[in-house]
Amino acid sequence: MPTTTMGAVAAHFGRDIDRTLAKLPGIIEQARERGVDLLVLPDATIGGYLHDMYHPADEPLPPAVDLDGPEVAAVRQMAGDMVVCFGIAERARADGAEVRYNTAVCVHGDGVLGVHRKVHLPLGESEAYRPGTGFDAFDTPVGRIGMLIDFDKTFPESARSLALDGAQVIACLSAWPASVTDRSDRLRNDRQAHLFDLYDCARAAENQLYLVSANQTGVLGGLRFLGQAKVVDPAGEIVAKTWAKGGLAVATADVEADVARARRTMDHLRDRVESAYTLTARPAPEPDPSRTSP
Amino acid sequence: MPTTTMGAVAAHFGRDIDRTLAKLPGIIEQARERGVDLLVLPDATIGGYLHDMYHPADEPLPPAVDLDGPEVAAVRQMAGDMVVCFGIAERARADGAEVRYNTAVCVHGDGVLGVHRKVHLPLGESEAYRPGTGFDAFDTPVGRIGMLIDFDKTFPESARSLALDGAQVIACLSAWPASVTDRSDRLRNDRQAHLFDLYDCARAAENQLYLVSANQTGVLGGLRFLGQAKVVDPAGEIVAKTWAKGGLAVATADVEADVARARRTMDHLRDRVESAYTLTARPAPEPDPSRTSP
Repeated sequence: MPTTTMGAVAAHFGRDIDRTLAKLPGIIEQARERGVDLLVLPDATIGGYLHDMYHPADEPLPPAVDLDGPEVAAVRQMAGDMVVCFGIAERARADGAEVRYNTAVCVHGDGVLGVHRKVHLPLGESEAYRPGTGFDAFDTPVGRIGMLIDFDKTFPESARSLALDGAQVIACLSAWPASVTDRSDRLRNDRQAHLFDLYDCARAAENQLYLVSANQTGVLGGLRFLGQAKVVDPAGEIVAKTWAKGGLAVATADVEADVARARRTMDHLRDRVESAYTLTARPAPEPDPSRTSP
Repeated sequence: MPTTTMGAVAAHFGRDIDRTLAKLPGIIEQARERGVDLLVLPDATIGGYLHDMYHPADEPLPPAVDLDGPEVAAVRQMAGDMVVCFGIAERARADGAEVRYNTAVCVHGDGVLGVHRKVHLPLGESEAYRPGTGFDAFDTPVGRIGMLIDFDKTFPESARSLALDGAQVIACLSAWPASVTDRSDRLRNDRQAHLFDLYDCARAAENQLYLVSANQTGVLGGLRFLGQAKVVDPAGEIVAKTWAKGGLAVATADVEADVARARRTMDHLRDRVESAYTLTARPAPEPDPSRTSP
């Protein structure tokens, strides 16, 4: 049975794109030596994350790159036959203007396999980025996968949408910081560290699929990133992890067989009862017909 | 500011209803002494759970009781001014026949405040019970709450439906057993024990509300129950818990203030992007119009 070796990176990537493009070959080669087929890098791999989530526009924004530009092409070339997910600040055009998205790109040597633009923009992020509009799985040489960025994984609807679209692996790309308002002496006791792990495990377990979660480390502007890269199996168990420092978490599995086994007796997708859920916000009150002109 | 004291029970309740009705006053009095306003008892408090989740009809089923029968009235009387959630096998009539539901009832001295019939029936449970059809929050003297039973909490749509319906506390009533297929020497390492805690914390955090989770303990038929009763705060942190043995987990909080504070900067209900989710199963293929008679 074919197995897939999944790697999740905890590392620091700053604003200097040349430095990142010089650092990436070493990380990718290390993953190759460990047999990695699917490598997930953090959000904002190319160009670094925001310095301040509340008022991002008060600081220089991360340098934006084009999907068909030289930076993405460079990672494609490094990837070769490996499938590599990484994060960028994407420059695009919409309505005749230049806009930016916080974007995850999945590549291998032959081209771009999938793109996801972050849907959920917390705090002041909408000053810096437009939101994406959907969650779509896509086919790769290592099977059907989906991607989430940062805050997306807080919302169970995100991973569920990908699972219902056939994803068997979810790549989570994060630049997830420690709590800004509620600092803890030890990173392991940090409230955001707890949530980061909690959502990784819950999304894998409730959807019965593999989740490969990468995160930034170190400090950028006012943010201290958590690391905690990991691979979670379809039972919600962490099968490989790093701590707060840089590292590579690697796990090998027969993804299709493991997902099928997890779903054999209790299938959390099949056993959903859609008719019982009320997942839309309550509609606004009906207009008063007596006040409507005929 | 008004506070609510929440209590979650880990205890064993078997098939003998008289014995349970003799045991409950002690548990409720103990909770009263600790100032509990909202007490959550396990699923199947009255009459015990199934002996076998795969083939429940091969064993005698739990005794069923009527919502307006003497057993529910007895708990109402014990409750007095306390709000008490507990589980029963409900006897009801549907389509002219006697049917059963796995039901959670919320009472206080003056009457029944809310009823939830388990929606998600795992494994062979549908041999024993009809499924419920929805998730609805309801108002109580301790605020607006909702209830989940057992497998319901595996599905994030369940708690989300309650949160969107205004619940600020979710009462989770369980008869959640240790893994049957994958026994562990120590209950704490059990796969189901991990999932039980994981879902409790994830549902509280992703919906930013209090979750009061009760569970059966001990052994019934072929099932060994996990206990692990707990109260989880809107950040997904366990603020009171029991272990696998019987006990009462108690926490006091200004629920409304804590929920509002948790949602102040990042509100997981407001920040949902409904248009981006694809939460319905893919539709069946359209019928071929050339084969449809005009």
